[in-house]
Amino acid sequence: MTSRTCLSIILAAGEGTRMKSALPKVLHRIAGLPLICHVANAVRGAGEGDIALVVGRGADEVKAAVEKVSPDVSAYEQKERLGTAHAVLAAREAIARGYDDLLIVFGDTPLIEEGALTEARSKLAEGFDIVVMGFRPADPAGYGRLIEKEGRLVAIREEKDATAEEKSINFCNGGLMALRGELALALLDAVRNDNAKGEFYLTDIVEIAHAQGRKVTTIEVPVDNVIGINTRVELAEAEAIWQARKRRSVMLSGVTMIAPETVFFSHDTLVEADAIIEPNVFFGPGVHVASGALIHSFCHLEEARVGPNAEIGPFARLRPGADLGEKSKVGNFCEVKNATVAKGAKVNHLSYIGDATVGAGANIGAGTITCNYDGYNKWRTEIGEGAFVGSNTSLVAPVSIGSNAYIASGSVITENVPDSALAFGRARQVTKEGRATALREQYAAIKAAKKAEK
Amino acid sequence: MTSRTCLSIILAAGEGTRMKSALPKVLHRIAGLPLICHVANAVRGAGEGDIALVVGRGADEVKAAVEKVSPDVSAYEQKERLGTAHAVLAAREAIARGYDDLLIVFGDTPLIEEGALTEARSKLAEGFDIVVMGFRPADPAGYGRLIEKEGRLVAIREEKDATAEEKSINFCNGGLMALRGELALALLDAVRNDNAKGEFYLTDIVEIAHAQGRKVTTIEVPVDNVIGINTRVELAEAEAIWQARKRRSVMLSGVTMIAPETVFFSHDTLVEADAIIEPNVFFGPGVHVASGALIHSFCHLEEARVGPNAEIGPFARLRPGADLGEKSKVGNFCEVKNATVAKGAKVNHLSYIGDATVGAGANIGAGTITCNYDGYNKWRTEIGEGAFVGSNTSLVAPVSIGSNAYIASGSVITENVPDSALAFGRARQVTKEGRATALREQYAAIKAAKKAEK
Amino acid sequence: MTSRTCLSIILAAGEGTRMKSALPKVLHRIAGLPLICHVANAVRGAGEGDIALVVGRGADEVKAAVEKVSPDVSAYEQKERLGTAHAVLAAREAIARGYDDLLIVFGDTPLIEEGALTEARSKLAEGFDIVVMGFRPADPAGYGRLIEKEGRLVAIREEKDATAEEKSINFCNGGLMALRGELALALLDAVRNDNAKGEFYLTDIVEIAHAQGRKVTTIEVPVDNVIGINTRVELAEAEAIWQARKRRSVMLSGVTMIAPETVFFSHDTLVEADAIIEPNVFFGPGVHVASGALIHSFCHLEEARVGPNAEIGPFARLRPGADLGEKSKVGNFCEVKNATVAKGAKVNHLSYIGDATVGAGANIGAGTITCNYDGYNKWRTEIGEGAFVGSNTSLVAPVSIGSNAYIASGSVITENVPDSALAFGRARQVTKEGRATALREQYAAIKAAKKAEK
Repeated sequence: MTSRTCLSIILAAGEGTRMKSALPKVLHRIAGLPLICHVANAVRGAGEGDIALVVGRGADEVKAAVEKVSPDVSAYEQKERLGTAHAVLAAREAIARGYDDLLIVFGDTPLIEEGALTEARSKLAEGFDIVVMGFRPADPAGYGRLIEKEGRLVAIREEKDATAEEKSINFCNGGLMALRGELALALLDAVRNDNAKGEFYLTDIVEIAHAQGRKVTTIEVPVDNVIGINTRVELAEAEAIWQARKRRSVMLSGVTMIAPETVFFSHDTLVEADAIIEPNVFFGPGVHVASGALIHSFCHLEEARVGPNAEIGPFARLRPGADLGEKSKVGNFCEVKNATVAKGAKVNHLSYIGDATVGAGANIGAGTITCNYDGYNKWRTEIGEGAFVGSNTSLVAPVSIGSNAYIASGSVITENVPDSALAFGRARQVTKEGRATALREQYAAIKAAKKAEK
Repeated sequence: MTSRTCLSIILAAGEGTRMKSALPKVLHRIAGLPLICHVANAVRGAGEGDIALVVGRGADEVKAAVEKVSPDVSAYEQKERLGTAHAVLAAREAIARGYDDLLIVFGDTPLIEEGALTEARSKLAEGFDIVVMGFRPADPAGYGRLIEKEGRLVAIREEKDATAEEKSINFCNGGLMALRGELALALLDAVRNDNAKGEFYLTDIVEIAHAQGRKVTTIEVPVDNVIGINTRVELAEAEAIWQARKRRSVMLSGVTMIAPETVFFSHDTLVEADAIIEPNVFFGPGVHVASGALIHSFCHLEEARVGPNAEIGPFARLRPGADLGEKSKVGNFCEVKNATVAKGAKVNHLSYIGDATVGAGANIGAGTITCNYDGYNKWRTEIGEGAFVGSNTSLVAPVSIGSNAYIASGSVITENVPDSALAFGRARQVTKEGRATALREQYAAIKAAKKAEK
Repeated sequence: MTSRTCLSIILAAGEGTRMKSALPKVLHRIAGLPLICHVANAVRGAGEGDIALVVGRGADEVKAAVEKVSPDVSAYEQKERLGTAHAVLAAREAIARGYDDLLIVFGDTPLIEEGALTEARSKLAEGFDIVVMGFRPADPAGYGRLIEKEGRLVAIREEKDATAEEKSINFCNGGLMALRGELALALLDAVRNDNAKGEFYLTDIVEIAHAQGRKVTTIEVPVDNVIGINTRVELAEAEAIWQARKRRSVMLSGVTMIAPETVFFSHDTLVEADAIIEPNVFFGPGVHVASGALIHSFCHLEEARVGPNAEIGPFARLRPGADLGEKSKVGNFCEVKNATVAKGAKVNHLSYIGDATVGAGANIGAGTITCNYDGYNKWRTEIGEGAFVGSNTSLVAPVSIGSNAYIASGSVITENVPDSALAFGRARQVTKEGRATALREQYAAIKAAKKAEK
């Protein structure tokens, strides 16, 4: 890494009206993380430096979001919308601190990769004064063209101002830029607004710098790196690209996915090699899947850990604090929350295990419910090693089941059960021979009467 | 809208044998609605007029289906299959009533849009006599080409009859047509069957009318508008196009979908702005999702309402009559049917709430079941505001739980509980120290004996 | 079919290091079946002959997997990796037995179809000595080109050795080959390793045979037939192609799928005409869905049968041995395992039915659990015809419920219930007026105290 100091300016003052949302545009999420945090992560990866946000609506919210991923953030309000150069100058105070490098990026281009920014900075280190990130779209119509001469970028030409020859160029302006810090304020202050919209355009510094004999160049970045988000359709498209990148990387690291297009990762999902993920799995934030684990179809996980060779689903939900040990199993229609399921323990069917500890090798029968909430407080259930909890049991917390204890099916357990004890809490069965027939006749008569009423 | 009268003739007599189905082809569904009803909705949108169906197999079923979306429908049986002109003439009686405009469409082209039909009618209003809807496929091979001269359509040329020059035309016959009502019968009766198959082709009226000096023209419609369904593969392809249209429109209206390609809408699904839909959600008919609602992954909804800022899933099923109030929650592995869940009430885990009212702010514990059916009758459960129903409770309907009442976990409740009362219905726990060991030995011995038997 | 004898040599000794897996590459699965078993099925379909495996790592495991689909398998270890010709010669003993035809295929090209192999063998029957399977990729760069002259294949030219003219050929070597058995050993022994890598290349036999005046030819196979698997990304791509083929074939046979891209079949899934499958369904191995059955969204099935006009889901899981009769229903959040659900019986909500028989017309209430496991043994539950099992019932196996018996909701049933008897096993409700208020105050005080502690 370079020892040059760096300031990244993230422009995030756009209104985002086409999102049709009460939420500021850059706080919409991809892979569970706000757009602007993706950008902040990329610039941090490339810079290890400071971040200046230029914000409009929702300034406090936006700053707070970025602070979660990056500590050194200052925020500047752009009070009027007078163009991109004007926006950058909202951070004049930060620029004036004097950095070697400036990175100018957008809060709504979440797919920018660290590598592109690093490459741009390395060009500054080589002696270039401005580095513009260009891309080659399938169809350049509508984009600003990068006009290069003798290895230098001389101008960024808008479509409407371009000659026929210039229009044939398919190397286009991606908007992002790196520039030498000491030149920045002079260049930005030189930008004029003598154009149709009366705005100060950041792109104008290219021609200004070139006229001053400064060295302006370009780097080419993949198209997806500069995709901007303006509508929820574009948000979904960017999410799809992010997911495709992540799935590919997860598979190449040695994870099998039968239908990767149906598995949705979060920005921080960690899956180890030789895990298998069946179709239709959703990872919320904070999930770690260990090696050899098997995630069946239709699982939903958030802030949870799946231990080595553990198996979950189909139809399992792991909520925050679910921590599944080695070779444990959580099966269909089971929810685990704030609970440890130790090595080899099994929660196979239709159970709710919340605020609990399930000991190694314990077996939790179908339909078991930890009754953890009294309407005010959450209470814990402790289940010892090797305990057997019969099906359809209610464990009324706070309660502890000793190791190797045995709970009869259908019990309501309200008191602690010692190690190796047997407990039951169920009514005795009463059977009345022949009585079903009379009961059915009675119910059928009610039905007939109701029908007659209509 | 125009004041011209309109008759839409929907041709739906095809056998549809390639569907390999007992169901008439036009009754197969897209977005939960029969193909022919999609067509009927489009023509109604464009016409506000009468509909004449030309039907073969399953005439009554087809007519009944269309009547659900359009009141003024007459049906005519095409007894022999002698070509499209012959099919249109099956509705001779309706045509003879005398309409300004005729629209001739097909029951198996469900993606036709109102806009295309309106544009065709507006051409009639401008003075054209016949308007043929054309499209430009990626590869025109196999389609009838639209032969235009001096701004008029002079013929529709089948591939096999086309010259090399004509084959290079990529503007093709989409099959759908608008024509001036008063000319229709004369033109149709002029069609001859002196061709290889001995059929009367509707397309022949173009040449006939042109020869008579009538004004025949075309409009261009998007390719998907004229897609016909002949196999279940094509049915699935058309469904995919319909879903893509709907998802796009929903997102542009301000709804976030993380993976729109995994969300399936019904023809009448209504989702308000700033709702969020996670991946893998299925909307059956009759669903309304209010603003700010959050639909987690793996939900299935039919004839249900999700109120403002309500949250459902993952793994929630809302069946007909589920009506969730503002900020209410229905969580994982919960089913709600014919039940109101009032403002702020919570049904978070593994519950069945059927034929019930859940009062505002009530909390329904995990595993709660409304026992609503006696084998003959459905009975209601009323749960008051602020009530707390402990986990794994059975509420045996008819039963009412008063407001702010409290039900202990694991109870079977068969009698009404007054406001602010505490109720329980569970057996007392019995614990036998050390007894689990003996029990285990006994079960292990049985296992060993069984194994020895084999 | 031909009467010629055939030996298929499946080369499966590759290391597969890019899979990053402890499992041998050819044992990774597509549609639930190991890659090499797909290949074995294709060669058996084309050959009805013997199979010789050439294996490296995991020889025993690989042989055992193939034996499950094909009885006549011999395995040969390739001890060193000295090229494809060397690999084939590891099976020298088998080749020396003297077969009319040899098929040489790869264990990691699972999408090869029987038709391609049959066509290659028919060329041998016509008198050709070697038949190379070629394909035409969108971009031939990197592939070996098939150099043909006067209707004969004269060489397979690697990209690096190809002239500009040869590079323009887009007919490429797919790797698979058929050859006349009696020539095989002489040709293979003639291959030299005087090349950069010092390996013996199977492709060299083409030039050798041509030089000897042997008749060498090609057949063209679809690109997907020769796709090789080297990474988990390619594994997922091949799975996607397999699934697309299967979905298309299932739809064309008369099955409706609303979103076929979300339905995942196993290699042996059988679905009959006029069944309907909603989005998001996963079929594990051994499933048979009968005609008229309706599979709702979010179902997961393994080794199960769904009878005619039966209906399952949404959110149903059928595990091995689930056998659903005609017009039976298994609804949301239900699991059925090793159990028969007879004609017209209903298991509609939140139930676990394991090791059981449910009689015709029986109704199983919501939340019913068969308590089938005592920690050591599995026990059966028998439910008679027309029985009514009230909601939230625990059936403690072994237990039998007679026909037309009636179980009250919320019961724990431990003893057999005779036909037409009424049984209940639940505690009597106790209601304490006004007591909820005091209880709430107590819980709220605990909450406040806990908060104060922090």
